[in-house]
Amino acid sequence: MKTFFLVILLLCTLSAFSEDGYNLWLRYAPVENAVLLQSYQSQIKNIVINAETPTLKAARNELETGLSKMLGIRPAFTETFKGVGNLAIGLPHAFEVIKDNANAQELQNIGAEGFILRQTENNNLIITANTDIGLLYGVFRFLQILQQEQPLSDINVVDSPKTQIRILNHWDNLNRTVERGYAGFSLWDWFRLPEVIHPRYIDYARANASIGINGTALTNVNANAQILTPVYLEKVKALADAFRPYGLKVYLTARFSAPMELDKLPTADPLDKQVQEWWKKKVAEVYSYIPDFGGFLVKADSEGQPGPHNYNRTQAEGANMLADAVAPHGGIVMWRAFVYDQHVPEDRTKQAYNEFKPLDGKFRDNVIVQVKNGPLDFQPREPFHPLFGGMEKTNLMMEFQVTQEYLGFSTHLVYLAPLYEECLQFDTHVKGEGSTVAKTIDGSLLGQKLTGMAGVSNIGTDRNWTGHTFGQANWYAFGRLAWNPYLGSHEIADEWIKMTFTKNSGFVKPVKEMMLKSREICVNYMTPLGLHHIMAAGHHHGPGPWVDGRRPDWTAIYYHRASPDSIGFDRTSAGSNAVGQYHEPVAKLFDNNETCPEEYLLWFHRVPWDYRVKSGNTLWNEMAFRYQKGVDGVRKMQKTWDSLKDYVDFERFGYVESLLGIQEKEAVWWRNSCLLYFQAFSNMPIPEAVEKPDKTLDFYMNIRELYMPGHH
Amino acid sequence: MKTFFLVILLLCTLSAFSEDGYNLWLRYAPVENAVLLQSYQSQIKNIVINAETPTLKAARNELETGLSKMLGIRPAFTETFKGVGNLAIGLPHAFEVIKDNANAQELQNIGAEGFILRQTENNNLIITANTDIGLLYGVFRFLQILQQEQPLSDINVVDSPKTQIRILNHWDNLNRTVERGYAGFSLWDWFRLPEVIHPRYIDYARANASIGINGTALTNVNANAQILTPVYLEKVKALADAFRPYGLKVYLTARFSAPMELDKLPTADPLDKQVQEWWKKKVAEVYSYIPDFGGFLVKADSEGQPGPHNYNRTQAEGANMLADAVAPHGGIVMWRAFVYDQHVPEDRTKQAYNEFKPLDGKFRDNVIVQVKNGPLDFQPREPFHPLFGGMEKTNLMMEFQVTQEYLGFSTHLVYLAPLYEECLQFDTHVKGEGSTVAKTIDGSLLGQKLTGMAGVSNIGTDRNWTGHTFGQANWYAFGRLAWNPYLGSHEIADEWIKMTFTKNSGFVKPVKEMMLKSREICVNYMTPLGLHHIMAAGHHHGPGPWVDGRRPDWTAIYYHRASPDSIGFDRTSAGSNAVGQYHEPVAKLFDNNETCPEEYLLWFHRVPWDYRVKSGNTLWNEMAFRYQKGVDGVRKMQKTWDSLKDYVDFERFGYVESLLGIQEKEAVWWRNSCLLYFQAFSNMPIPEAVEKPDKTLDFYMNIRELYMPGHH
Repeated sequence: MKTFFLVILLLCTLSAFSEDGYNLWLRYAPVENAVLLQSYQSQIKNIVINAETPTLKAARNELETGLSKMLGIRPAFTETFKGVGNLAIGLPHAFEVIKDNANAQELQNIGAEGFILRQTENNNLIITANTDIGLLYGVFRFLQILQQEQPLSDINVVDSPKTQIRILNHWDNLNRTVERGYAGFSLWDWFRLPEVIHPRYIDYARANASIGINGTALTNVNANAQILTPVYLEKVKALADAFRPYGLKVYLTARFSAPMELDKLPTADPLDKQVQEWWKKKVAEVYSYIPDFGGFLVKADSEGQPGPHNYNRTQAEGANMLADAVAPHGGIVMWRAFVYDQHVPEDRTKQAYNEFKPLDGKFRDNVIVQVKNGPLDFQPREPFHPLFGGMEKTNLMMEFQVTQEYLGFSTHLVYLAPLYEECLQFDTHVKGEGSTVAKTIDGSLLGQKLTGMAGVSNIGTDRNWTGHTFGQANWYAFGRLAWNPYLGSHEIADEWIKMTFTKNSGFVKPVKEMMLKSREICVNYMTPLGLHHIMAAGHHHGPGPWVDGRRPDWTAIYYHRASPDSIGFDRTSAGSNAVGQYHEPVAKLFDNNETCPEEYLLWFHRVPWDYRVKSGNTLWNEMAFRYQKGVDGVRKMQKTWDSLKDYVDFERFGYVESLLGIQEKEAVWWRNSCLLYFQAFSNMPIPEAVEKPDKTLDFYMNIRELYMPGHH
Repeated sequence: MKTFFLVILLLCTLSAFSEDGYNLWLRYAPVENAVLLQSYQSQIKNIVINAETPTLKAARNELETGLSKMLGIRPAFTETFKGVGNLAIGLPHAFEVIKDNANAQELQNIGAEGFILRQTENNNLIITANTDIGLLYGVFRFLQILQQEQPLSDINVVDSPKTQIRILNHWDNLNRTVERGYAGFSLWDWFRLPEVIHPRYIDYARANASIGINGTALTNVNANAQILTPVYLEKVKALADAFRPYGLKVYLTARFSAPMELDKLPTADPLDKQVQEWWKKKVAEVYSYIPDFGGFLVKADSEGQPGPHNYNRTQAEGANMLADAVAPHGGIVMWRAFVYDQHVPEDRTKQAYNEFKPLDGKFRDNVIVQVKNGPLDFQPREPFHPLFGGMEKTNLMMEFQVTQEYLGFSTHLVYLAPLYEECLQFDTHVKGEGSTVAKTIDGSLLGQKLTGMAGVSNIGTDRNWTGHTFGQANWYAFGRLAWNPYLGSHEIADEWIKMTFTKNSGFVKPVKEMMLKSREICVNYMTPLGLHHIMAAGHHHGPGPWVDGRRPDWTAIYYHRASPDSIGFDRTSAGSNAVGQYHEPVAKLFDNNETCPEEYLLWFHRVPWDYRVKSGNTLWNEMAFRYQKGVDGVRKMQKTWDSLKDYVDFERFGYVESLLGIQEKEAVWWRNSCLLYFQAFSNMPIPEAVEKPDKTLDFYMNIRELYMPGHH
């Protein structure tokens, strides 16, 4: 036994010398704490589980893998109890001990996906749930508790997800390019599907199940109708079959003009009977391949995508037509609120609200309107989207971006949970104080029956899935927040670090601090003080505050409006009145430049360059200090990381080190470009404490980057 | 010691449960033969090497990895001998024992890249060479001998490469798509270069060094001038630095119109002084980044690529201009002979010879003309290119295609060494009998000073590098044949199977047989009896004997010329006289339909449908039987593979099994499509013994495949 353990230990040690990140937070590294290890080994001698379904087989496989790696023991699987140290896993009536240790009310409360993990009176352990998937989630949580080296004594975890649709959106094209994807190419090997099921598909499903993600939309929101043809449906079916045991439902994006493109209908008018029939028939065809197909995700009337506007129909009419087609099969429609038009002469950030608010209550029950966290487009900082708390009679789901389109691609270390948390915890005041965004979408405040959260995926074919090692933390965080929007960024980071790297506090503490600060550091070197949308055009890589063009809402100058006098977009009641789309007292808070939180200053206000900010500095000086602060922040991250070499395998250490080097260079690039450009307006000197750019504005304005990832 | 060994054994055993193919033929699996294992362990106790240079460090790393995994011992590295069981590695004067065991003549013979590996009188082992790279090659060969479980007693390997430039051509685009690439996307992560050197780059270099490949052209022959700009040169330099210790030189493709594209010169005329100056300056710039830059690979005047023809200059004038620019830096130019033009009213397969033959002897010494194996374009079978033996005063190098553009992409198991061998061993008769193609290019027959072989790479980001597990064998085979064009397909297969899978003869024997037959099987289900170029247009996936179009030399009908009477392209002396480009007696052999080998029948001859082939069958019946034979051949491969489940890890077993399933379906697709189409001309029934197609010709002709890999 001891020799075997030594074997496994050495095995794991040797493989720990080099880690490529493939195993994400499911490394199941050997337990480091000797006391806990012994305690675990005595408590988990025998696992009682009837692994008869695919999901329970998956759960058993995970236990086998996880426990042998973490505990150095091959667990015994039996169908009945043996002595002490039993872990029983089953639905409530599977085993007596389970029935005796979970009451009916608890079981009702945890719903279809929750689980109970507890120690019984006799010092055994049970995991129970109302469904196999609940059991799988419980097993994953159990293994994570061990991986984070938490004690099992008196353990009593009763958990269930607070939203229903917890889904990744892959902006993957059929040619395997990924829009705004920086981690290689699309995971979906369409050419070899349906015959070849890569192990990677299973590991993808495992990773998602481990954080409770239960849905995946496989295709780009800039949709391609071909995915709805039999050739592709066969391939989609193969993926759905591979994912099903892990509770991962498949969704597809629906191209609104598909009837015209695929079958030459003369129109795609949602009120046209022939069009309605076409979708009913097409949907039935999809369900003939995939009986539990989740439904459609739709981007319409936006950035060139066809939609109901083409036929003078409303968003609700468009969504409801699709909803009626999928309803008989139990499907849903996630209809994106990201609708805006350069010909509409209104502040872009107001348009989605203007479009959707009047339609509140007009959507079918199986429609859920998918709303980005902010009213513009995933900037490093945006105020929350006014539709949260704006629509009270409609199912709403959050759309977060996990891929770092505007936050440094896959070369910048930016932990996004603080961004997500900031949005979720913002008080909309729709029903008075405490009406956080989270509450407006999880059904608890407004009573919606359909709830959810979507994450625009940062996953691709790169070996470590997300390009940047720390990008994995954002996938992880998104999943945890979709499951429970009330979790804190720090506790999520704590979990992720311990499982992905080490439990050693000498590492955990500084890395957690680094992660928690990284978002603000990024805001500082890119878009401080409420600046937004000042990145390079097209590929969005690097700074572009000078970006001009024929389409104003795609420029930078439209947003910062820098002039020799002032800078910022007046969204107050005296300006575009975007503030008016919020409930009081939120509207007033933003409207008044003295109460408006400084991080949103230039989002809502237009101020002179010598405006005094809270610190007493002029706006110009403060801006310059913030940019410098961002650069300094990255350098501090580099120092921190360099000091932690002994805690990390050499491969991941070196890789993150290289990426931090890139991030530092790019933070300097951002600072220099923005300060030199805005200085042309402020006409003020760059303050002493800020490093002077060593190149000219002309140099920066002439940079042309070719073949950037994510932009094809 | 025993425990440690047990540890390693278990480590390797456990990891053998699932292999993803990443380790290629460098798995260093534990030695299976217990007697040999003991013998190895006693002979390799102590390794004497002064690992002071990057190359020797690389050699040492390889020994450490390979020996610990294969032998279960951590070898001891010292700077002097210890007792018995020493392996001394060094240049001839590094250690006495080396000097005493390798004589001057031998050392001169092995040149700059060869090595000597032998057992000394005192039962020690030595590896010596004239350069560090030679030592590295010797170390790899040594490790391969162990991996294949050959005895070390009396070992005496004296080997050196027979060609100089042994190079992979990556048709990689800067946006990471790979033209005719079916293994994912480009390895070169331009976006994260130069800062990030992925471990994969090092493993790529190791794999190439292990088979003696010493050059890599990083970019597509359909060239992009941007690679020659500083932004990209910095990235190329980073790759060159990573590859250098492994003896892998970097080359780039040169876009002929680069002076115009990059610096707005009004012309790219090779005789224009300004253009010549531009290239001299540009080349000097490249060498300032990469002092040992190999040189340029050029595709010109072909398929839309710019070239000397645009200025009424010859191929030699174009090549020489570039050659003069790189010569002062020690660089070379590989100038492709793949030149043809639809406006030239001549049999396409004759055009390259017509273009280049008159230029024989007119190329600079540092130019080498790169010639495809056959005169058309990498078909499953072609006669050898008449330029081999056609040009006697010019450096010529072979261009083989490793990626299976016309042989089933990365879903068909086709071992290409028989195709390569067939070409290399063809007797050109340029200097009488025995003037094999191999001899015409390795300098032994015609005295060229610059020799080489290029392989169009099948490598991409897929985890197993080549998409199909057995595609690795083709990369391997190409490398071995570039080193020694006289090796046999069977011995190469033997090496590869033993190192990639197992030494167990219960596996090796049937798999070797399967591999050796696979090329002919593919010819049979695609293009039997000399048929050629009848694949689908554009992406080249699947059959397309009906392909017509405005450009005849890109159709299928141009090549098979099927009519109700006959089929085949008359390339005899009565027809296009392509045969006339060969020396006698080759010309006569092909010219006479009775002596023309049947596998080239329809390449050189036009025959009626009822023409009697050697078997006595009509041409039509024989064609049908060959197609059926191809399908049967794939089914036999499936049976063979299925019977070998116990010898292979489950992951690779299942993957190859899935791919064989695809191959079988596609073989049927080819057979059905071609027979139904040609039947419309032959007007003869498909013979009894051939399965009847279950779909119509119309069905096959209407198949439209979208988003095929390799075609962007």
